[in-house]
Amino acid sequence: MSIPVSPLALPLPEMPPIAGVACASHAAGIRYKTRDDLTVFRFVPGTTVAGVFTRNLCPGAPVDWCRAALKGGKAQALVVNAGNANVFTGRAGREACERTAAETAKLLGCKPKEVFIASTGVIGERLPTDVLVGALPAALAKLDADAWASAASSIMTTDTFPKGATRTAKIGEATVTICGIAKGSGMIAPDMATMLSFVATDAKIPAAALQKLLSKGTAKSFNCVTVDSDTSTSDTLLLFATGQVKHPRVPAEGGAILKDFARALGEVLHELALMVARDGEGAQKLITIDVTGAVSAKSAYRIAMAVANSPLVKTAIAGEDANWGRIVMAVGKAGEPADRDKLSIAVGGTWMAREGGVIPGYDETPVVAHMKGREVEITVDIGLGTGKARVWTCDLTHGYIDINGSYRS
Amino acid sequence: MSIPVSPLALPLPEMPPIAGVACASHAAGIRYKTRDDLTVFRFVPGTTVAGVFTRNLCPGAPVDWCRAALKGGKAQALVVNAGNANVFTGRAGREACERTAAETAKLLGCKPKEVFIASTGVIGERLPTDVLVGALPAALAKLDADAWASAASSIMTTDTFPKGATRTAKIGEATVTICGIAKGSGMIAPDMATMLSFVATDAKIPAAALQKLLSKGTAKSFNCVTVDSDTSTSDTLLLFATGQVKHPRVPAEGGAILKDFARALGEVLHELALMVARDGEGAQKLITIDVTGAVSAKSAYRIAMAVANSPLVKTAIAGEDANWGRIVMAVGKAGEPADRDKLSIAVGGTWMAREGGVIPGYDETPVVAHMKGREVEITVDIGLGTGKARVWTCDLTHGYIDINGSYRS
Repeated sequence: MSIPVSPLALPLPEMPPIAGVACASHAAGIRYKTRDDLTVFRFVPGTTVAGVFTRNLCPGAPVDWCRAALKGGKAQALVVNAGNANVFTGRAGREACERTAAETAKLLGCKPKEVFIASTGVIGERLPTDVLVGALPAALAKLDADAWASAASSIMTTDTFPKGATRTAKIGEATVTICGIAKGSGMIAPDMATMLSFVATDAKIPAAALQKLLSKGTAKSFNCVTVDSDTSTSDTLLLFATGQVKHPRVPAEGGAILKDFARALGEVLHELALMVARDGEGAQKLITIDVTGAVSAKSAYRIAMAVANSPLVKTAIAGEDANWGRIVMAVGKAGEPADRDKLSIAVGGTWMAREGGVIPGYDETPVVAHMKGREVEITVDIGLGTGKARVWTCDLTHGYIDINGSYRS
Repeated sequence: MSIPVSPLALPLPEMPPIAGVACASHAAGIRYKTRDDLTVFRFVPGTTVAGVFTRNLCPGAPVDWCRAALKGGKAQALVVNAGNANVFTGRAGREACERTAAETAKLLGCKPKEVFIASTGVIGERLPTDVLVGALPAALAKLDADAWASAASSIMTTDTFPKGATRTAKIGEATVTICGIAKGSGMIAPDMATMLSFVATDAKIPAAALQKLLSKGTAKSFNCVTVDSDTSTSDTLLLFATGQVKHPRVPAEGGAILKDFARALGEVLHELALMVARDGEGAQKLITIDVTGAVSAKSAYRIAMAVANSPLVKTAIAGEDANWGRIVMAVGKAGEPADRDKLSIAVGGTWMAREGGVIPGYDETPVVAHMKGREVEITVDIGLGTGKARVWTCDLTHGYIDINGSYRS
C-alpha cells in the first residue's frame, strides 16, 4: 500500500553539520529491499548523552539496552534500524543488542556501552542480526558530517515525510547549534509508527544537566502530542552533546547559563513533536487543544489529552463538524474536576458555549469556516481555577483505518 | 446516511408481558419525523427501582434527575425520548426534566419523583419540552402490557437492530420473569450512541436489595463492554420490580433467596451488553478478550480494557491480521504489572507467543482462519498471578469513521 504524503507535511529545513557528529545511511536489507534502513551516527569521544523512553511496560530490547547504557553518560555511536522493532523477541532480542553494540564498538574502538541502539518496525519478529552487523562496515565507511537529511529519511517507516529541526543558541558569548531528526506517525503507537528522535549539539554539557534539559523539554513537546492514544514499545529520544564549541563551563547541574540553550532545545523538540502529529496516520487536520481554568496544570493536561484521544472528537473534526457536545463528553470522561455548568468551549477563537450552555444567538459561520481549514483550534475553559495545558493531535480518518487495518498484509 | 444492519445482529427474542408493567411508543416529532421517538412505561404503584449511571463528570440533566429520584426507591413511570440528549443545556435542561416529571405525574396521579427520565441524542440542543409534554396524553393512551418490542425500537438512535433479553428465575417455589431492552452502539459514547437499558421484573424486591443486584450485575456486563473508549454523558440503566408475583419475602439486604434471580438478571444484562458490542458503530467482528495470570482481578480488567480500547488492536482485527505485537503494546500501555518475558498470547485458542517470544515453529493457519470469522477471541496470560477478567469489544472499521465523521451533517 502506498501512502500519500500528509497534506500537513512541512519541508525539511537546511540542517548544518554539528562539529563532532557524522552520520550515514545504508541499504542493509534488514526488511526493506529498495531503500536505506540502517542509520549510524559517530560521535567524537567525550560526547555526553541523555535520553527519555517509552513508558510502555513491555518495551523493546533496544530500550532496555539504552536505559542501561545511559548510566555511563557517554556516547560514541548510535545504530538505528527501520523495519524491525526487535520487540517481544525474548533472549534473542537482548543478544541482538549486545552483539550490535559489541561489533560497532570493535569497529570504532570504543566501549559497547558507548553504543546506543534504536529499532523501529514490526514487533515479534527476530532481528536478522547477521545482516545488520554484516552491513556495519559499509555503513561506517560512508560517515559524513553533512548527512542529516538522508538520516531523517532512512529512519522512517510509515512516515510520509522526513522530519528535522535546527536552532542556534548562545552559551555565554559562544554560539552553539542544535540539530534534530524524528520519525513517527502514529506517535505513541507501535509497529511501524514508533516515535524515534535523535538530537545533537556541539555544546559541552555534562550528562546530568543534559538529562534535566531533555526531560523538561520533552514534557512540553513530545509528551503533549498524541495520535491514537496507543503507546509504542520503542519510543526513544536521545540527545548528544559533543562539546566541540568553546564556551564558559556548564556546571553539572546546569542552571542559568543554559537558559538560551533550553529555549532553543525546547523549540527543536516542539517542532519535531508537531511534525509527528502532522504526519499522524491518515491525518488531514492538525488539532491544537488548549485547556484553561482547570484546578491545576496536571488536571488541565489530563483533560486536554482526553479530548485529544477521543475517537468521537477526532472523527467529528475529520467530518468538519464543530460538535462541541463531544468535547463536553470528553472533558467529563477525563475524570478530572469539571462542572458541566461552568464549561465554556471555543473553536477557532469563536466561543460556542459558555457556562454550560450554547451562547444565545450563536452564529456558527466563522466556526464552520475554521473547521474547513488544515489547522483546528479548540479551547476549553473549565471555569474552576488557573491550571492550563496545550496539546496537539490530528483527526481520525479513513486513512488511519487503511494504514492500520492492512499493515502487515 | 443510512446505516446497514450490523452483521453481528441477533433477533429480538419473544418478550412476555411483565405483570404490573405497561408501555407505549409514540411518534412525538421531538427530532425524528417518521418514527416513534417517545417511549413511556407505567409501573404499578409500589414498584421499586434501582439504577446505575454514567461515570462521566458532565452528565445530562436526566441523569441528575434520576439520581435524585432514585433516593425514594419507588417508580410509577419512565419517560424516554430519542434524538435529543438534553445534555449541556443548562437551566433549561433541568427545567425540562422537572416539567416532564410534573406533567407525567399529574396525568398518572403519582409523585413527580416517581417519574424517571432518560434522553438520548444530540448534545447541546434544547429539548422541545412543549412537544414532549404535549405528546404525553396520546402516548399514555396507548399503554399496553405487550409492547416490549416496539419500546426496544423506539429508544434506538444509531442502533441498527433492537435489543432485548428475557429470563425466568425461581424465588422460593415461585417463578418470576425478567425482561430488558437496551440501546447503544457506540457504548460508552455520546450523541446518538448513548447506552440506555431498562429492565423490569414481576418479583417483589426491596429497593436496597435491587440496587445491590444491579450494581453487581453491571460490573460483569455493561462495564465489561467498550466500543471506542468514549464515555457517554447519558448512560442509564434502570431496573424496576413490580412485586406482582407472590413469593417468600425478600429481606431489605437481599441474600441467598435471590441467588437464582441474580443469575437470571446477570444473564439478561450480559446478553444486552453483548448486543451493544455487536451493534458497535461500524462493527464487523465481536471481540472477546480474556486476561489471565494478572496480579489481581482489577489489574486483569484494566489490561483487558487497554487491549479492547486500543485503536491499533481494533484496526488490526478489522484487517483480519493476528498482529500480536499490538496486543503486547496494549498490555504494556495499561500501566499494570506485566513482564514482557512472561507474556503469552493466544488467538482463537491457538497460542502464538509464550513467555515473551513467538512459539518456535508456530503455524498461523488456524489463527488466520479464526480471524476471518465474525467472532474473535484473544487470550493474554500475564504469567504473574491468578487475576482474570473478560471483556468484549468490536473492531474499528471504515464504518465507524463514516458514522461519526458525518453525523450531524
